[in-house]
Amino acid sequence: MTDTRGSARRGRRPGDSGTREAILDAARGRFSSEGFRSATVRAIAGDAGVDPSLVMHFFGTKQALFVAAMEFPINPADVVPHIVGPGIDGLGERLVRFLLGLVDELGEANPMLGLVRSAVGHPDAARMMREFLGEAILDRVAAAIEADRPRLRADLCASQIVGILMARQILALPELAAADRETLVGVYGRTIQRYLTEPLDPR
Amino acid sequence: MTDTRGSARRGRRPGDSGTREAILDAARGRFSSEGFRSATVRAIAGDAGVDPSLVMHFFGTKQALFVAAMEFPINPADVVPHIVGPGIDGLGERLVRFLLGLVDELGEANPMLGLVRSAVGHPDAARMMREFLGEAILDRVAAAIEADRPRLRADLCASQIVGILMARQILALPELAAADRETLVGVYGRTIQRYLTEPLDPR
Repeated sequence: MTDTRGSARRGRRPGDSGTREAILDAARGRFSSEGFRSATVRAIAGDAGVDPSLVMHFFGTKQALFVAAMEFPINPADVVPHIVGPGIDGLGERLVRFLLGLVDELGEANPMLGLVRSAVGHPDAARMMREFLGEAILDRVAAAIEADRPRLRADLCASQIVGILMARQILALPELAAADRETLVGVYGRTIQRYLTEPLDPR
Repeated sequence: MTDTRGSARRGRRPGDSGTREAILDAARGRFSSEGFRSATVRAIAGDAGVDPSLVMHFFGTKQALFVAAMEFPINPADVVPHIVGPGIDGLGERLVRFLLGLVDELGEANPMLGLVRSAVGHPDAARMMREFLGEAILDRVAAAIEADRPRLRADLCASQIVGILMARQILALPELAAADRETLVGVYGRTIQRYLTEPLDPR
């Protein structure tokens, strides 16, 4: 009986928010310094002074741990399959509609803006974002592409999507910031769809 | 005879690099705090302790003063007319070819990256960049567009161009960073051309 409480006081029981915070702190440190790919759950657990199985018990996957450490509002692993799943037809529009909806909903509290800020200023943060985006989103989108050079096509999509975030949210270009969402879903959805399906070199 | 030298020693003669630096410092301060549009040559001259005519003697235009203050490698006023001048046909490809050539040439020393970094972290810097981009580039591009909503179209182009810079240079997405320039000129040139000319709402 006193065992459980004693353990809790030492801060090393599943469900203990002190332990959870220690893992998240350790994760932020490892992901920032080593990137998303090289940072291991084992090393993060070691830094937090817990068993790796406890990290997996709390978070399930390394991607989910990253999402929690960065305080993202969603885990791409939960969302991307629903967007990509129905197939390549209309995928551009589904991606843009989801992104613009999320961005409008989050507004200034959008933690993606913080990640963009870090990535722009710090090469380590840029690597972390590149590797996470790659594994969590771009490789999943590329897997749905039937045309040649699927990962280049996913990168092209990412370049327009990051550009939307920059130009509409951060620079706030006036006509773009004021444009209604459905117009942008149509215009950008067609661009993304072209990147997903059309010949890269039509000559 | 001694007049000229005496004047130079006091640092207030045209051609005096101390005066030039004082003007550039004053310009950076005013542009950062008030934005590109509200900062006046008169106020900048006042801060530098010189006559406004001397600022114009050194720099010619407020845009050129901004370009010098930010240490841009080029003044858009010198370049954009040559790209836009030949007309709307092929404008997308000319814009992208120029941008990618410039970005590859500048590499890490690209001062546009510094401006993007500031804009992402500081709303005042974002406003400064938005207003300068607007007057120096986007309004000039919009003036060449014959279709409806020209400035929204110019903003759409800007969103893809900023996205190229972010995804290829800052995030360095692997396939995009490795792609050959002519492939990207073709793919992105067609996107920009669509934003310039095609119906925004084809329904």
